[in-house]
Amino acid sequence: MINDNFVIKGDICYSKSLTDLECIKNGYLVCKDGVSEGVFEKLPAEYIDLALIDCSGMLVLPGMVDLHIHAPQFTFRGIGMNLELLDWLKTYTFPEEIKYKDPDYARVAYRDFVKKMKKSATTRAVVFSTIHRQSTEMLMEMLEESGLITYVGKVNMDREAPKALKENDAETSLEETVAWLSDISGKFPHTKPIITPRFLISCTDELLEGLGKVAREYDLPVQSHLSENPEEVKLVHELFPTASCYGDGYDMYGLFGKDVKTVMAHCVYSTDEEVDRILNNGVFVAHCPTSNMNLASGIAPIRKYLNLGIKVGIGTDIGAGESESMFRALCDAIQVSKLYSRLVDKAYKPLAFEEAFFLATMGGGEFFGKVGSFEKGYEFDAVVIDDFELSGLNDFPLRSRLERAVYLEADTMYLSKKFVKGREVKADYGNQYFD
Amino acid sequence: MINDNFVIKGDICYSKSLTDLECIKNGYLVCKDGVSEGVFEKLPAEYIDLALIDCSGMLVLPGMVDLHIHAPQFTFRGIGMNLELLDWLKTYTFPEEIKYKDPDYARVAYRDFVKKMKKSATTRAVVFSTIHRQSTEMLMEMLEESGLITYVGKVNMDREAPKALKENDAETSLEETVAWLSDISGKFPHTKPIITPRFLISCTDELLEGLGKVAREYDLPVQSHLSENPEEVKLVHELFPTASCYGDGYDMYGLFGKDVKTVMAHCVYSTDEEVDRILNNGVFVAHCPTSNMNLASGIAPIRKYLNLGIKVGIGTDIGAGESESMFRALCDAIQVSKLYSRLVDKAYKPLAFEEAFFLATMGGGEFFGKVGSFEKGYEFDAVVIDDFELSGLNDFPLRSRLERAVYLEADTMYLSKKFVKGREVKADYGNQYFD
Repeated sequence: MINDNFVIKGDICYSKSLTDLECIKNGYLVCKDGVSEGVFEKLPAEYIDLALIDCSGMLVLPGMVDLHIHAPQFTFRGIGMNLELLDWLKTYTFPEEIKYKDPDYARVAYRDFVKKMKKSATTRAVVFSTIHRQSTEMLMEMLEESGLITYVGKVNMDREAPKALKENDAETSLEETVAWLSDISGKFPHTKPIITPRFLISCTDELLEGLGKVAREYDLPVQSHLSENPEEVKLVHELFPTASCYGDGYDMYGLFGKDVKTVMAHCVYSTDEEVDRILNNGVFVAHCPTSNMNLASGIAPIRKYLNLGIKVGIGTDIGAGESESMFRALCDAIQVSKLYSRLVDKAYKPLAFEEAFFLATMGGGEFFGKVGSFEKGYEFDAVVIDDFELSGLNDFPLRSRLERAVYLEADTMYLSKKFVKGREVKADYGNQYFD
Repeated sequence: MINDNFVIKGDICYSKSLTDLECIKNGYLVCKDGVSEGVFEKLPAEYIDLALIDCSGMLVLPGMVDLHIHAPQFTFRGIGMNLELLDWLKTYTFPEEIKYKDPDYARVAYRDFVKKMKKSATTRAVVFSTIHRQSTEMLMEMLEESGLITYVGKVNMDREAPKALKENDAETSLEETVAWLSDISGKFPHTKPIITPRFLISCTDELLEGLGKVAREYDLPVQSHLSENPEEVKLVHELFPTASCYGDGYDMYGLFGKDVKTVMAHCVYSTDEEVDRILNNGVFVAHCPTSNMNLASGIAPIRKYLNLGIKVGIGTDIGAGESESMFRALCDAIQVSKLYSRLVDKAYKPLAFEEAFFLATMGGGEFFGKVGSFEKGYEFDAVVIDDFELSGLNDFPLRSRLERAVYLEADTMYLSKKFVKGREVKADYGNQYFD
């Protein structure tokens, strides 16, 4: 049997909805066949014979879902924060991504990335690689071994990039994509492909049209970037004069929701029309607050999106975000929402802690199905955080202990156990880097 | 001899001015009698007989200067981030600070705080305690033992606070202050008193007048809060109808620079008149970006202050800031400056990394004298960070290694050594909490 059946005892916190955060001290969380049977204050008799994993006194939380992260940018995270998007891509990102043509470079670089992800509180991630087929497959193989469940996209780019990081033409890019899908077909039960036009700027109409067809033919989801930076948006309109909004450039080729599950990162500068389209097409927004600060992009109006009923998750966006910590990204989401409310539009209330926690778990989790909660029927992703060293003098309520653990990024230091779909991911969590 | 004479070899980074960050790989940093003799690429013959501390491959930086931190709020850091200033004080802060009347509570709480400070990259701090004389003295004793150099202020409050956190009247508050100064007179060479009206709201005119006299009579510096939050500023004007600006309320009683060295935290809503006064009176601004996000205060216009030539340092402002990490506060300063430039006034350029690093070291260091640099003649405060585990695949320039170490808050995990005025502070740096 792939998945064990077991019970975790501990101080259990999870979202039931955007505003309803359940916190049960000394509770029991039951896993059967990789799925949660729910959380109980007393263990029901029917589960009494299951193995008990005693995490008493520790925080037991749903695994974090990172809805937007660039694996090849891990090598230069926390460096070069002095530029805005387009110049940052040219100066730091593209030169680095070129290196992933070399499988030897990619092997070592992706090994470091995957180790870090394995030791993080993240259980699910939606990942960009580069344009390179071989190193993308290598990354997928490593992620599969890690125990995480991910979507990974070989990136498509056929213009507006250095020659060494550009596929010759749309046809080559599409051929490589299909060859990639063929190579990995049936190979990775937990590491799935996702169609990944880098952003509108780096793709010709012909490439986008082809990618739309591939997405439908192979029944694959789509990820990309949307309305991140003013200069980027301006260039999009020059390159796509007939698109009524940035999102329309994807939508006209079937790469923007509806039947194709889609996640778009950023959405800082989405127009009213684009926001309507995001909502009506059921596109997920990957909110990346850290990245949006670092590249001076601005602040996405997440409260507005939530009020409308748009699906929102959180992304670390390594390397424009410096850290793989979803706790950090979650706090940043709260902090920038306070600045948005103060500086831009006070009609939009800041995100409450409960809401940001929901976004980092259930919000992004929905991209993977029933993921991100411990409600009965949700896939069993859990992390255990030993927050004893953060406890201090006062006996705070569990809700406050959770808030502190998140604000102090306990995921980077005090992770104790991790389960993905019921399978334990074993790692030397205390040691941040080396196994 | 109190201070050793020695040489540190390592990868040395320090500010020479706001914009000039010197980075010398495999350099030599010489300490004589607690003062820097400068940094050398080759060790001059005259120092060849000094003890050599080999920190090759590690970052050697000036100690961080935390210009604003509340010791009693360490117990509830990272909790209760849902309110703005005045409600936050009433709901979380005042009830906690009341507990410091009990010396047994204060002893344990301050022990945790001082341990954390000792293990941080901070070598100097300007600290608030509470109104309580006995526990303030306890805190000073512990800080003295820690090896850090600090200013500590017994807080004065005689109105607009719960009865249990209010001194009976101005006279009592002043008597307690003088008694405190008498108790500690000559006792602590590295832990100095600072006059600390909590903020204008919590002090009557009579108390402020008396504190101004005490400051002059004892030749003491002053710390307080200034123009942090709109509701606070409004209440100040109701309570001080004759004050032309918030700062004028301090200035009319001699508590705002000129002959009295003064640091004011926040300055988010300072009017033009107040900004002029800050500049002309030589008042230091303690910029607390993390706190200003958490309490939804806003963003202080630091670029404007720097353009004018105002003295600026950085504060963590625990507990409205959640972390004691000055690296975190330094990054937050950069990040919010980008949002200020984007959302408020693009005429004010974001802070460069070099500039924020200067603020966290030399900028705040000036409050302590010649502190915060390795230029010849500066007091020898240094921290050594073992950033090996952050190094990754690429051989980045030292400047980039420093940037990454700061962005990834290497101070919280990879501190290896710390020196304050030439004296080594020994601690179990790897272990975050317990000795």
